[in-house]
Amino acid sequence: MTKLTYKKFRQIKSEIRILGIDDSVFTPRTKGKADLIGVVCRGGQWLDGIMRTKVEIDGLDATEKIAKMIKNSPHYAQIRVIMLDGITYAGFNIVDIKELYAKTLLPVITVTREEPSLEDIRKALKNLPYYEKRWKIVKNTGETFKVQTREGEEPVHVQVAGISQSDAEKILKKTSTRSNIPEALRVAHIIASGLAQTKEKE
Amino acid sequence: MTKLTYKKFRQIKSEIRILGIDDSVFTPRTKGKADLIGVVCRGGQWLDGIMRTKVEIDGLDATEKIAKMIKNSPHYAQIRVIMLDGITYAGFNIVDIKELYAKTLLPVITVTREEPSLEDIRKALKNLPYYEKRWKIVKNTGETFKVQTREGEEPVHVQVAGISQSDAEKILKKTSTRSNIPEALRVAHIIASGLAQTKEKE
Repeated sequence: MTKLTYKKFRQIKSEIRILGIDDSVFTPRTKGKADLIGVVCRGGQWLDGIMRTKVEIDGLDATEKIAKMIKNSPHYAQIRVIMLDGITYAGFNIVDIKELYAKTLLPVITVTREEPSLEDIRKALKNLPYYEKRWKIVKNTGETFKVQTREGEEPVHVQVAGISQSDAEKILKKTSTRSNIPEALRVAHIIASGLAQTKEKE
Repeated sequence: MTKLTYKKFRQIKSEIRILGIDDSVFTPRTKGKADLIGVVCRGGQWLDGIMRTKVEIDGLDATEKIAKMIKNSPHYAQIRVIMLDGITYAGFNIVDIKELYAKTLLPVITVTREEPSLEDIRKALKNLPYYEKRWKIVKNTGETFKVQTREGEEPVHVQVAGISQSDAEKILKKTSTRSNIPEALRVAHIIASGLAQTKEKE
């Protein structure tokens, strides 16, 4: 059994630095790479920095590439939490959030609008090489719980590594300032999809 | 004589959509292109969208490429003002701000921390082809004036097209929320330089 450890937050500052990561648009089930964009936001407010990496479509390198991007960044020392848009990037390049926490020593919170369906993921993984390896990571991710980030809006679905559910909930509520999605993930999505849309026009 | 026209702002909303444009890092005096990043901010607050184009280093296509980027963008109808980091992009690819206003029907405000030196620009242009054409645009840009965007901080140097100095001043003060540079330009700089820094690591 692995020992469960996590960072405890005595106090959550309103300017806590969050890194939100999203992927750009890519053509599914092709060979190639997709851009991942990381955005550093201070709390739910302003943009502090940006970083980028590339991962293989349906590959196995997302955890390693994200950890490397973060540790190579000048913002590494300031970042307190990593937020992911679910655990699958660039198709089914799955992030092992426990390993990402171990590699960066930063707690990881995944946020999705839809409840992730383990059964749907398992079916999709069956068509890919290294099924067993991928499925093991998915199963190891831990339970999903709901957080209502804003009053009167739909709750989001959350998974965590390296942080308690209660601290994650507090951080999500504090940083979801413009929508029910935390600002770092909202901005990462705008930048990643905006850059992709203009790519073909160059 | 050209007729001086400009947009009048009856009221400047705190969520006025501003497009800020900055260029990414490039190798000066080489052949090639540099990325320009355009960022749509609501007032001095949140990021609404992003766009991108490429212009030739020391080329003559900045005005046309920026106008095209804006008019092709889904944000065009919402943008009220264009803000530029001075009139030279990608080296000495000069933006004709009067023409940019004419092409987009959006007022243009240029903002720099340092006072632009006409004499320095003229000397640099002497080493480039189409000197007369470039110098004519620079001279035609109009006078520079200072605006103290935030109390107790250094003023910025401003040029305008299609907007009165007084309206430009109001908009600059309203949108310089995190520093003495308006938020749309501050964020455009972070994104343009952040993307460039990670390029070599891919």
